[in-house]
Amino acid sequence: MITINGMIENSEVEAEEIQYNIGRRVSLHGSIYKIRKMSGFAFVILRTKRIMVQCIYSEEFSNFDIGSLKEEMCVIITADVIEEKRSRSGWELRLIEIEILSEPEYEVPIVINNKLVDASIENLLNYRPITLRNEKERAIFKLQEGICNSFRCFLLEQKFTEIHTPKIVSAGAEGGANIFRLEYFGKAAYLAQSPQFYKQMMVGAYERVFEIAPVFRAEKHDTSRHLNEYISVDFEMGYISSFYEIMQMETKMLQYTLKYLMDNYSNELSLLKVKVPEINEIPSIKFIEAKELISKEFNRAVKDFEDFEPEEEKLLYEIIMKKTGCEFVFVTHYPSKKRPFYAMESRENREETLSFDLLFRGLEITTGGQRIHDYREQIAKMQNRGMTVELFDSYLMIHKYGMPPHGGLGLGLERFTSKLLNQNNVRLAALFPRDINRVTP
Amino acid sequence: MITINGMIENSEVEAEEIQYNIGRRVSLHGSIYKIRKMSGFAFVILRTKRIMVQCIYSEEFSNFDIGSLKEEMCVIITADVIEEKRSRSGWELRLIEIEILSEPEYEVPIVINNKLVDASIENLLNYRPITLRNEKERAIFKLQEGICNSFRCFLLEQKFTEIHTPKIVSAGAEGGANIFRLEYFGKAAYLAQSPQFYKQMMVGAYERVFEIAPVFRAEKHDTSRHLNEYISVDFEMGYISSFYEIMQMETKMLQYTLKYLMDNYSNELSLLKVKVPEINEIPSIKFIEAKELISKEFNRAVKDFEDFEPEEEKLLYEIIMKKTGCEFVFVTHYPSKKRPFYAMESRENREETLSFDLLFRGLEITTGGQRIHDYREQIAKMQNRGMTVELFDSYLMIHKYGMPPHGGLGLGLERFTSKLLNQNNVRLAALFPRDINRVTP
Repeated sequence: MITINGMIENSEVEAEEIQYNIGRRVSLHGSIYKIRKMSGFAFVILRTKRIMVQCIYSEEFSNFDIGSLKEEMCVIITADVIEEKRSRSGWELRLIEIEILSEPEYEVPIVINNKLVDASIENLLNYRPITLRNEKERAIFKLQEGICNSFRCFLLEQKFTEIHTPKIVSAGAEGGANIFRLEYFGKAAYLAQSPQFYKQMMVGAYERVFEIAPVFRAEKHDTSRHLNEYISVDFEMGYISSFYEIMQMETKMLQYTLKYLMDNYSNELSLLKVKVPEINEIPSIKFIEAKELISKEFNRAVKDFEDFEPEEEKLLYEIIMKKTGCEFVFVTHYPSKKRPFYAMESRENREETLSFDLLFRGLEITTGGQRIHDYREQIAKMQNRGMTVELFDSYLMIHKYGMPPHGGLGLGLERFTSKLLNQNNVRLAALFPRDINRVTP
Repeated sequence: MITINGMIENSEVEAEEIQYNIGRRVSLHGSIYKIRKMSGFAFVILRTKRIMVQCIYSEEFSNFDIGSLKEEMCVIITADVIEEKRSRSGWELRLIEIEILSEPEYEVPIVINNKLVDASIENLLNYRPITLRNEKERAIFKLQEGICNSFRCFLLEQKFTEIHTPKIVSAGAEGGANIFRLEYFGKAAYLAQSPQFYKQMMVGAYERVFEIAPVFRAEKHDTSRHLNEYISVDFEMGYISSFYEIMQMETKMLQYTLKYLMDNYSNELSLLKVKVPEINEIPSIKFIEAKELISKEFNRAVKDFEDFEPEEEKLLYEIIMKKTGCEFVFVTHYPSKKRPFYAMESRENREETLSFDLLFRGLEITTGGQRIHDYREQIAKMQNRGMTVELFDSYLMIHKYGMPPHGGLGLGLERFTSKLLNQNNVRLAALFPRDINRVTP
């Protein structure tokens, strides 16, 4: 019997620490990202955990043959850190020895070590396990880590409790046909379209809760903005005095996030040339007024009075951007008909709900609103819609046994990431996107 | 058009801030958890976000009728914070006014405001939306938030990248029949049993990655330790020189977590009377030696030479506890036959894998090990097992195009929580557990 302690011995340096080792000989490991042979010497770019490190090979000081190196080999290098004022970093790394830990069986079938992966989106995604080794491709998801983590830090600071709710469910929260069906030990079950019911239930226990987890939508849309599985950032808060408080919380969360990224992910932001939007305040417009505004400004006839066409979301962005300089806009008071049975209706006009969407650069990234908390009001609305109330027994427990006024929202992580990066397809912001045609890799 | 800024106005105090308001009149909100009427006065316990707050009602100073209050009402109270040396908190809260925001339609059908919810596990779970309002029940999942977050903080500190991998997949990582099948637009797809393939792929891009997300196992076991959906804490790290490094990393992670809980969740730990285990170092024993040890110490014949019986895990715990005082034990070198096709075999003995389980208080909470990174070695092992190599094309890209030596582990969040709390059923550590008989609530 031996024992394992938590001491991790490591004589290597991290790539980020090279700068503190000028004048020393160091070891570090990584994959060979790129070899550029010049006359008499070569640049060897090492891919480390987060940054690329340029090393210099020369027969003068390197004790091995450059011909023995291949791209995508995994190696431990020994190198001298030499002060070099002409270099941007202030140092250069001279390769002395190299230990080869593993080598690829084949050359990669697609060039991954140029600035961009020059491939169709199909191939980019088909070869994801290796195209993500590209410097910019992997930076996208490093940045996404930061987005996600900033949301979480913010919500924890605001005293939200993080929860994990089931993804296998007995009924859909959003209704409709857009739900994946599952064989569950001989019974039918479904994949959760959203944690809606569960997060509301948990408001009864913790007042404020959030969840960051996958949701599943069996939508047959094959567009640049739909995924069939995505990460939903959901929060729900009790004791609100109006649904505007939810919008304030989201505004504050986004402000926090953008600052957090600039503070902690500046490397990725600059690599991806992200234009970080400024948020002082976010304009908010009623749905019906937005419709009229778009119609007037662009001289378009309104076809659908209950929802936006994707084109209209873009036009609204243009108008708001011109008027206010803000790349976000809240649209409020969506028609009751288009919102789920749990949406609270305006006391002044029952045709309108106390709900909102947030559009970012012309794309809906959030849907939220106040929920009905009164039992009778909820039952009446369900009956009105011809729903079978008994199917929702466990959900309705919260209304039955007491709930505070509450509301919340869901934000699509990939859509937000994608718009922040000005990508033209949300698939580019999912590590392994799922769409109507794709379940691999 | 109006604008929304991130300023959230609030004249109320947080429950945790009452102590700083002695001598002042404050407002705060919450649900009425319990009313205890005494002669001439009453205690009203308010359930706030994280703590219960005791208020005192008396006709002397309260400007309303106690008869108008019901348990599970949501209210805003106005109260005077009076210094009271005899109270443990140093103050008492005298109710002056009360504003009722909502009231329950019915009384709860199960008593939720005693120390424990006195109900069968069936009823406890059937009524989850309201039984989680119990002080101790909700504390379990507040603590789970801390466990989860400490894992994440630790892994981020150790330069792991957090990833989100798909839960809808085209093939299972663990093989076997324990996989849920799904209708995916007329094709078959499955629910991920683990993020195994994806996290390995991402080691190629980030070197160290982790994911905390649901996994799905269609196991027909109806035991106190199985869930069909659970949260798996998965990490995977490249450039390891031995699989013991993974065990060191886990040891360090657990040390971090226990300290984090004591620093940030002492309230919940003491409420739940958690005996936090000490971890200086964790004993590690080879599988075959553990088998022999159990057999010898308890004079039991070994029936299964390839796996533990649950009873044996408990006996091993007793032995190790007696010998070392440690409640954790690593078991290593599981037989190749019992481990998946990607497990690396010992160079000395091909019948054994470079793998481990971690047992905590007699229950397996982690499975991990080193993976095969060499393409030919992986192909040979798959062919040996009669697998159809072509089905794993995208997974095998990483081996084909170069991978560092690597390995990782998966830890079951609910099992860890459950054992930490000395619960006798893992369902008690899942907000809304899924088992062979349960998909609701």
